[in-house]
Amino acid sequence: MNTSSSAAPSAPPSAAPSPRTQVKRAANRASHDPAVLHAIIDAAWVCHVAFRDEHGVHCIPTACWRIGEHLYIHGSNGSRMVKRLADGECCVTITHVDGLVMARSAFNHSMNYRSAVIYGRFETVGEYGNEVSKRAAMEAFMEHLVPGRQEEIRPGNDKEYAATTVLRIALAEAACKTRSGPPEDDEEDMAVAAWAGVLPLREARGTPVPDAGCRIPAPDYVRRWQE
Amino acid sequence: MNTSSSAAPSAPPSAAPSPRTQVKRAANRASHDPAVLHAIIDAAWVCHVAFRDEHGVHCIPTACWRIGEHLYIHGSNGSRMVKRLADGECCVTITHVDGLVMARSAFNHSMNYRSAVIYGRFETVGEYGNEVSKRAAMEAFMEHLVPGRQEEIRPGNDKEYAATTVLRIALAEAACKTRSGPPEDDEEDMAVAAWAGVLPLREARGTPVPDAGCRIPAPDYVRRWQE
Repeated sequence: MNTSSSAAPSAPPSAAPSPRTQVKRAANRASHDPAVLHAIIDAAWVCHVAFRDEHGVHCIPTACWRIGEHLYIHGSNGSRMVKRLADGECCVTITHVDGLVMARSAFNHSMNYRSAVIYGRFETVGEYGNEVSKRAAMEAFMEHLVPGRQEEIRPGNDKEYAATTVLRIALAEAACKTRSGPPEDDEEDMAVAAWAGVLPLREARGTPVPDAGCRIPAPDYVRRWQE
Repeated sequence: MNTSSSAAPSAPPSAAPSPRTQVKRAANRASHDPAVLHAIIDAAWVCHVAFRDEHGVHCIPTACWRIGEHLYIHGSNGSRMVKRLADGECCVTITHVDGLVMARSAFNHSMNYRSAVIYGRFETVGEYGNEVSKRAAMEAFMEHLVPGRQEEIRPGNDKEYAATTVLRIALAEAACKTRSGPPEDDEEDMAVAAWAGVLPLREARGTPVPDAGCRIPAPDYVRRWQE
């Protein structure tokens, strides 16, 4: 799953947008197609954000969502990560594991997966700024989590918005790496008497659990959660 | 989900082993209990490894497994990550998302999750070294993926082992952060007419897909994959 990056920002989908998004290992698994990147982000609840401070390198999971060509995150103004991300470059990674790939030899075992690595610097989303306002960005987050819920809940008030920072990073410098399909054994291993194939993994949705104090009938998005 | 660490390596489970593993935000969700850490690692197929080189900070997903008080990874000798990890400190993070937490107000929405952050430096696992040999470590990896399969497959040969680096990092400097349970709304929002509760998420196992050329009947670990 190693992913790393060589071409200009408006390069064709097959070209890496920078040296560090050029995938070197198993390069046949690489993609710089925006549609692949968008799908990987849109299927994610969280991303992992790697950044540096005086204590070293950190890797922190946080909720994420996409609006156009940016990935958004949010956090308390006081959070170390929020404070540090304004200062320097970082790397944001999303990974979905789709299955275990069982080959006939130990070293040809693999995993099926979809991963995206984004490099760059986060910018703060202002009250009115960056095409998308802070409120519009947070409402898009709720729509990403549960479409249709925004209208029912008590929206954020001025105090809550003031205590929260919304950040976004451009998707310009990114690389995806994916693997799917059966194992690839060497010819000389095909007679090994081991079962070969894929053991699939996926995200599943469990039965919704209403809050003990909830007297509101389940709305559409709750009744359809498991569809 | 922000996780960051203050005490000695053999401190009680409730104490952080270092300043950078002291959880500051939502500290009630923090744990330094080894059993919690072990369970989070053992439930994971991959971890995210953050490290630095001359191009910046990187965050790369890679398969992981645990033996005792170390987390193990492996890679090709030529991989950038493998080469860089021997040079400096890194941060390894694992995250499981367990559900979306629907509160009555927008800003009290949350996620249920289990995450672990491990700081330190990887060491190379030698042919005979570090208590666990390279071969024993790779066999434990297979046992973690699919218990019982090791005996059927063609094991790694000298050439394959020579081209592969196995690395391990001690679990001494780590912090876990978890959230479970219902939403926590403010008293003044309890009358808001919005459904409240948890929309659960979990990893599911799909029907095994035999390789087109596979004539071997499904062994126990394949037939029981979905149990």
